[in-house]
Amino acid sequence: MAGNSFGTVFRVTTWGESHGRAVGAVVDGCPAGLDLSEEEVQRELDRRRPGYSTVSTARREEDRADILSGLFEGKTTGTPISILVWNRDAQSGAYDLLRNRPRPGHADWPYLARYGIRDHRGGGRSSARETVGRVAAGAVAKTLLAGEGIEVAGYVRELGGIRGELQESWDISSLREEAEKNPVRCPDQLAAKEMIQAVEAARGAGDSLGGVAEIIAVGVPPGLGEPVFDKLDADLASALMGIGAVKAVEIGAGVEAARMWGSESNDPLLPGLKFETNNAGGILGGISTGSPIICRISVKPTPSISMPQRTVDLSTGEAAEIEIRGRHDPTIPPRIVPVAEAMVALVLADHLLRRRMARV
Amino acid sequence: MAGNSFGTVFRVTTWGESHGRAVGAVVDGCPAGLDLSEEEVQRELDRRRPGYSTVSTARREEDRADILSGLFEGKTTGTPISILVWNRDAQSGAYDLLRNRPRPGHADWPYLARYGIRDHRGGGRSSARETVGRVAAGAVAKTLLAGEGIEVAGYVRELGGIRGELQESWDISSLREEAEKNPVRCPDQLAAKEMIQAVEAARGAGDSLGGVAEIIAVGVPPGLGEPVFDKLDADLASALMGIGAVKAVEIGAGVEAARMWGSESNDPLLPGLKFETNNAGGILGGISTGSPIICRISVKPTPSISMPQRTVDLSTGEAAEIEIRGRHDPTIPPRIVPVAEAMVALVLADHLLRRRMARV
Amino acid sequence: MAGNSFGTVFRVTTWGESHGRAVGAVVDGCPAGLDLSEEEVQRELDRRRPGYSTVSTARREEDRADILSGLFEGKTTGTPISILVWNRDAQSGAYDLLRNRPRPGHADWPYLARYGIRDHRGGGRSSARETVGRVAAGAVAKTLLAGEGIEVAGYVRELGGIRGELQESWDISSLREEAEKNPVRCPDQLAAKEMIQAVEAARGAGDSLGGVAEIIAVGVPPGLGEPVFDKLDADLASALMGIGAVKAVEIGAGVEAARMWGSESNDPLLPGLKFETNNAGGILGGISTGSPIICRISVKPTPSISMPQRTVDLSTGEAAEIEIRGRHDPTIPPRIVPVAEAMVALVLADHLLRRRMARV
Amino acid sequence: MAGNSFGTVFRVTTWGESHGRAVGAVVDGCPAGLDLSEEEVQRELDRRRPGYSTVSTARREEDRADILSGLFEGKTTGTPISILVWNRDAQSGAYDLLRNRPRPGHADWPYLARYGIRDHRGGGRSSARETVGRVAAGAVAKTLLAGEGIEVAGYVRELGGIRGELQESWDISSLREEAEKNPVRCPDQLAAKEMIQAVEAARGAGDSLGGVAEIIAVGVPPGLGEPVFDKLDADLASALMGIGAVKAVEIGAGVEAARMWGSESNDPLLPGLKFETNNAGGILGGISTGSPIICRISVKPTPSISMPQRTVDLSTGEAAEIEIRGRHDPTIPPRIVPVAEAMVALVLADHLLRRRMARV
Repeated sequence: MAGNSFGTVFRVTTWGESHGRAVGAVVDGCPAGLDLSEEEVQRELDRRRPGYSTVSTARREEDRADILSGLFEGKTTGTPISILVWNRDAQSGAYDLLRNRPRPGHADWPYLARYGIRDHRGGGRSSARETVGRVAAGAVAKTLLAGEGIEVAGYVRELGGIRGELQESWDISSLREEAEKNPVRCPDQLAAKEMIQAVEAARGAGDSLGGVAEIIAVGVPPGLGEPVFDKLDADLASALMGIGAVKAVEIGAGVEAARMWGSESNDPLLPGLKFETNNAGGILGGISTGSPIICRISVKPTPSISMPQRTVDLSTGEAAEIEIRGRHDPTIPPRIVPVAEAMVALVLADHLLRRRMARV
Repeated sequence: MAGNSFGTVFRVTTWGESHGRAVGAVVDGCPAGLDLSEEEVQRELDRRRPGYSTVSTARREEDRADILSGLFEGKTTGTPISILVWNRDAQSGAYDLLRNRPRPGHADWPYLARYGIRDHRGGGRSSARETVGRVAAGAVAKTLLAGEGIEVAGYVRELGGIRGELQESWDISSLREEAEKNPVRCPDQLAAKEMIQAVEAARGAGDSLGGVAEIIAVGVPPGLGEPVFDKLDADLASALMGIGAVKAVEIGAGVEAARMWGSESNDPLLPGLKFETNNAGGILGGISTGSPIICRISVKPTPSISMPQRTVDLSTGEAAEIEIRGRHDPTIPPRIVPVAEAMVALVLADHLLRRRMARV
Repeated sequence: MAGNSFGTVFRVTTWGESHGRAVGAVVDGCPAGLDLSEEEVQRELDRRRPGYSTVSTARREEDRADILSGLFEGKTTGTPISILVWNRDAQSGAYDLLRNRPRPGHADWPYLARYGIRDHRGGGRSSARETVGRVAAGAVAKTLLAGEGIEVAGYVRELGGIRGELQESWDISSLREEAEKNPVRCPDQLAAKEMIQAVEAARGAGDSLGGVAEIIAVGVPPGLGEPVFDKLDADLASALMGIGAVKAVEIGAGVEAARMWGSESNDPLLPGLKFETNNAGGILGGISTGSPIICRISVKPTPSISMPQRTVDLSTGEAAEIEIRGRHDPTIPPRIVPVAEAMVALVLADHLLRRRMARV
Repeated sequence: MAGNSFGTVFRVTTWGESHGRAVGAVVDGCPAGLDLSEEEVQRELDRRRPGYSTVSTARREEDRADILSGLFEGKTTGTPISILVWNRDAQSGAYDLLRNRPRPGHADWPYLARYGIRDHRGGGRSSARETVGRVAAGAVAKTLLAGEGIEVAGYVRELGGIRGELQESWDISSLREEAEKNPVRCPDQLAAKEMIQAVEAARGAGDSLGGVAEIIAVGVPPGLGEPVFDKLDADLASALMGIGAVKAVEIGAGVEAARMWGSESNDPLLPGLKFETNNAGGILGGISTGSPIICRISVKPTPSISMPQRTVDLSTGEAAEIEIRGRHDPTIPPRIVPVAEAMVALVLADHLLRRRMARV
């Protein structure tokens, strides 16, 4: 109820602050008998790691996934899978100035308003560091999904106003492969180059950029999702809007659907119960149709910028300035991709299991 | 778990199908001692009622809210509030043709894929009729919120590509008043006229239109929302994406945030802990800031159109045509407004109560 | 969260007060495709009805189950099953004296301490009338269980200190049949006669009697129950202790287990994975073993007695007397049997569905 | 849903197996601002530690509580409190013989029936080792309760048929102090001596003993508990029945209530809204009355006995013998006391917070 758990059957609880001793996740509800290895979890953690390129923050996070329970002889046992990652690189000193000056665009002030107490060293639970647990849990979910032929992949579609295009011939493997070739995770290599330049320019100006990422899931069978409140699209919206910096979630045609005619928006059904088009983004009435699931998120620019910004000094109540030091990503979408994939995988794994209860 | 309940502390369960005997809601977790009357619930039900204009469907729904429990001498008692509305106008015959031909853009096929059985008379639980329960429960939530000085209002911002503008001088009461003056619920009266013409044109062509609605909540204190998974924006996204026909949810700057610079997107804090701008839409890190909450939904065109559409005959597996008869709204946004308000009110009421647990 | 729902997958929400307009239940999570009829629900409601004999209260409750949703052509559709029973026989006047004098042994005072408001006409939600919803929902659960070969039956084992004995030759059908032959629901007909005399004597003295009921479930497959917190026995304990007037719950050997040696208490396993004895009551480590589930409840005497009792007048704070008028059962166990069966059935139905998630 | 979490608002998730790398708990929903130290958690862990006497198992568990998150400058921050205890003393070899021979009285066989896979080294999640997480979480709950003037204490009331008596003059502190003076945790020192002899005799015979423990909570204000399903007594019953080896739970008069008359069972109310007696055990209608909460559990004898026992060999399906080697407690009640206290504290902490939502 305090909002640190996600999912109903396949359920993850994350814990840990950016400047505490460790972060982690407990995955509860993973069925017994699944082949799972620490390597698979590690691979996903490596994908979310910053510092692998000039585009991302230089802060060094060498995150080793430690699986402490729930596995026996390489298989899940049906008991909770506890995954722990130690924190190593905490330079709390850099945050001393922030104790009394809430950073614009950050959760500092509402957090304090809520709890009356705040670990000012970094964002606490609101830090991107918390997503380590999500990605680790998502790796378990992806393993479960893979066994059912479901794959999830994400990429950056737009960054700093520059739009990348997909090629029709790509399947989901090609898409993923192309996206992982460059640090902005845009599969359109030309657009990717422009994006990198735009990010460097923003960094040079002490500013930051927003963008759009898209997450696709293929192989999802029809019939996933509850019909009224825990609709598949409602759960995906919650999963994705709940990632820091996301300000919009779209499914299928998304915002464009508002400008369509019904005759254009409706996807015709074809023999074989396939759909000719996919404006629905693979979901009708909250239930999967068998077509690929398409989700899109709009990500605001990194709020931590080095330019001076106006804020308030909480000790005096007066206007004050703040300059945020330290290493920060000048743009979030490339790093958000593995996190968003993890959240989509968690939702799909949950509903895959929930569907088992739909019929006698 | 079967997805017919919403909310954690303030929790509503809806039940009933479009062509069953009744629809209803059970509101559990409403605190004791709240002044509540059937009239307040009825007022909101009347707002969602179709048929009050040429723009909306001519189907007559005279929905009387019957409160069967949870009230004593005009006050809530802390026990479940059961609200029932009888179904009256079920013309099931009109749906016979649909038994084997899933309607494009509807949940017919995925629903059948999930349950293996389907009440083909209308959309069952996927029908807009289900929202009667949401609106009734939302009325209870609004009453609770009003006691804390919180108001929720919605309006149509765009319809068929026509955009209405707000006037800076309007407060939330003026906004609501202006919006309720016309059947498309657009407070910009000139734009409203154009919208009505567009809707009539679509109806004439046997087609339908999409649009955008915006829901605003004022008076929301800072500190509402959990910091990781049950973020206020994540719960709003779930609440709103879970309404039929919604394909995108935005908070604050929404999709536009992706094209901003950080220096532009960050809302500066001012003395008094107010924010100069509200790109955040009243939420940072998933927690309310004290600024107005701004949500926007993109609504696809009504999938029920009278033009012939391509589908599949389930009995033969072959291609087939479908023409949807009967009275259907040619556009959804005007009627979605009270439903979306209800969902926003449910989320806020829930988090208002959840905040009580944040501190010792 | 306000405690009006029970179960996780197979979940029932009850609503309604003893002196309100109606009582009811919403069953959510019943799988689609189950054959269900109003008659089956009615049969169970008839079993809990008081007034059929001199032993039970003369108050007339003619409860008709009205199923308002979730059924189509005689089968469940996977959507919520809403069941409503109107209240008819409310004589609120009889309760006026109770407004300021909390009844000893009743929830009157703690209820007021909790909510600050109380419908003094009867027990509100604490009334036995609330169990109408439980029994109706339990009837749905029993139907689901029957399809899997699981049967649940209960009987009165002890009343007013008189103990009935079971015959070894009885199967569960004979047990049920014998128990339903007399108004105290004791299958030992000789003991039943004595019990009836004891009850009549208590009624004559303006007093009441306690007793013990036992609930048995046969056909339960091994593997039901979660291993740590939602153990099958823990959920049964919650289900049964949550019925008004129950003060102890035992599984298998129960309180006697405390006086056994390990070599006596352990049930040996036999080839075929059957157990020689059943001190475990069919549950080990919280998981069903395949042996019959055995639960026992100790029920306190009816707190509503006509003798004068000492209480406090809430308006003055001073000592006061109370004499409870009206028709009340002088003993609860016979009427608790169908309620306890319903609760056991709800737990088993829930865990039957939950087990579907245990393996990949 | 997989049953590794307990509580609604104040919620603990435990993880870890007896022979895995570590065990732990994540406490979610502890309010911000509570003074909490590792020492307080350690103190309770030390109380559950075996091996401190000849009565308990000689197996050495030196459990150090490591709090990894949720604390800042000695206070809780409202975020999850992750507590980890490394496993040190795993001698898995001792369990090799058990791979194919389910131990009578243990969860071995039903566990395998459920999951199809089982870590045969010890009981896995069914091991008493899992209670480390419960006790650690319970220590946090006790700290929260102490701030509200609520104290929880337990003791052994009966062991091997020997009954200890309480002295009327004892308050809860004296009771706890007396109980902790001897290894069987019985505050009646004479009875304790006899109990120790009985335990030693059982150990000598390769057998084991059962007993009864009682848990008392004082200072609990009236109004805790939901009125229908999450009754305070229902939740306590679930909490206590869910501890391994417990076969019965009683509240107040418990099984004796079944033999009382109503005039004897009802506790009269006195001016000041106190109760003259406490047959109710501090709970009426599922809600606390302000009187002490009294719970009693009947604990079966340790199932691990060194005598030869009959079981089945899973590889052949034939009858087999088993002799359980290694160090095992010959009786459970003394060690169950801190676990049962922890569970009671978790329930009370949860309902203390839930009560905050009862009124507007």
